Amino acid sequence: MDNSKIGQHISGQFNRELEDIRNKVLTMGGLVEQQIELAIQAFTTNDMEMAELVIKQDNQVDAMEMDVDLECTQILALRQPTAFDLRLLLTVIKIINELEIVGDLAERIAKMAIQLSDTDTRNYQYYELQHMSDLVKEMLHGALDAFARMSIDDITAITGKDENVDREYDSIVRQLITHMMEDPRNITRTLNVLWTVRAMERIGDHACYICEHLIFMIKGEAVRHLSQEQLEEKMKG
Amino acid sequence: MDNSKIGQHISGQFNRELEDIRNKVLTMGGLVEQQIELAIQAFTTNDMEMAELVIKQDNQVDAMEMDVDLECTQILALRQPTAFDLRLLLTVIKIINELEIVGDLAERIAKMAIQLSDTDTRNYQYYELQHMSDLVKEMLHGALDAFARMSIDDITAITGKDENVDREYDSIVRQLITHMMEDPRNITRTLNVLWTVRAMERIGDHACYICEHLIFMIKGEAVRHLSQEQLEEKMKG
Repeated sequence: MDNSKIGQHISGQFNRELEDIRNKVLTMGGLVEQQIELAIQAFTTNDMEMAELVIKQDNQVDAMEMDVDLECTQILALRQPTAFDLRLLLTVIKIINELEIVGDLAERIAKMAIQLSDTDTRNYQYYELQHMSDLVKEMLHGALDAFARMSIDDITAITGKDENVDREYDSIVRQLITHMMEDPRNITRTLNVLWTVRAMERIGDHACYICEHLIFMIKGEAVRHLSQEQLEEKMKG
Repeated sequence: MDNSKIGQHISGQFNRELEDIRNKVLTMGGLVEQQIELAIQAFTTNDMEMAELVIKQDNQVDAMEMDVDLECTQILALRQPTAFDLRLLLTVIKIINELEIVGDLAERIAKMAIQLSDTDTRNYQYYELQHMSDLVKEMLHGALDAFARMSIDDITAITGKDENVDREYDSIVRQLITHMMEDPRNITRTLNVLWTVRAMERIGDHACYICEHLIFMIKGEAVRHLSQEQLEEKMKG
């Protein structure tokens, strides 16, 4: 683990503060990853206890965000950091916001699982859904891993997966629409599946936003709103 | 206009920098408000030029966000502000992020308008939709106005409207589901209306988030994830 960037302060106390923040972000990230994992499992296996757990975990995630946000604000006020340290703290504030949103999306999937739990026709399209969820989990994990290593060397490999996620999303939505047309009695139920797929697609987007924040943190350059091609070009240069 | 909070710095230059940031946020907010207005109009009147304009405006909104974000980061590095000034700058970074998301949602509504433009059965539920859009526009305008005045005295009146938005959202979604069941050939088209209503509901949420950021800025207290009742209680105290 390359700690060099945050290990060079004269004040050992400041080092410890930054290290503490970093560990908290990773703990929060780990919890959010678990939320996604459990939400999808609850959705596909009809496990309501698991769904309830995801909803409970979201309070924890919310509290963690507020805690780390406050800690960053206090360090900014007391230490008045500049250059990389300043960008690190501003980036952390943005990353925990993305994680909080991802936690909300996992919670939404868990709530959809609960709404769908009284129906028994559950086994279609779940293979595609599982595959899409694997992709977004990989993206989020990659983004958190890049943060842990403070390295953006492989960042475009992560953001590049979003095109696959979008393709799978479109394909599942088309199938769901066909399904609704074939049997209109299924519409309410199928809409809940649709919201779930949508939530998953958005988790992929937020993983990409985390990657963009990391690029700003490491390179000091804003790369929002670039296409994947533009981003790859930028990262080469 | 109460400028007292940002008018008391020894450095006139620093005052001007903060005033400049504040004006840019309000300009960005005005543009986003216009985007929503035009997107809804494009949607209800089938005006494709208007829809295209909203999509173009979104590039401007994106550029404004990046510009103000960078300016805030530079001021944080150079001026090393504390207390209210620090909270102001951190809050601005969050508010412009909310505005950028609202701009994206307006763009999405404009794109739905374009997708729906080749159908001619357009006149149902648009009354409800217009009413819901009036509500979310009021919320966003109120939040921006509170930022302009640096006052959170009426903030719970703004956040309180979100319950009405959610109620209208639920009611419209129920009608749309009925509509899909009655005529399954309409499903694809109705889903586009559904995404539009959903985008509008989310604009209301982001207006609330701006209000929460403003409470943090003025009072220095984090109020995320409180219910409307808890928030009202807090603001009394």
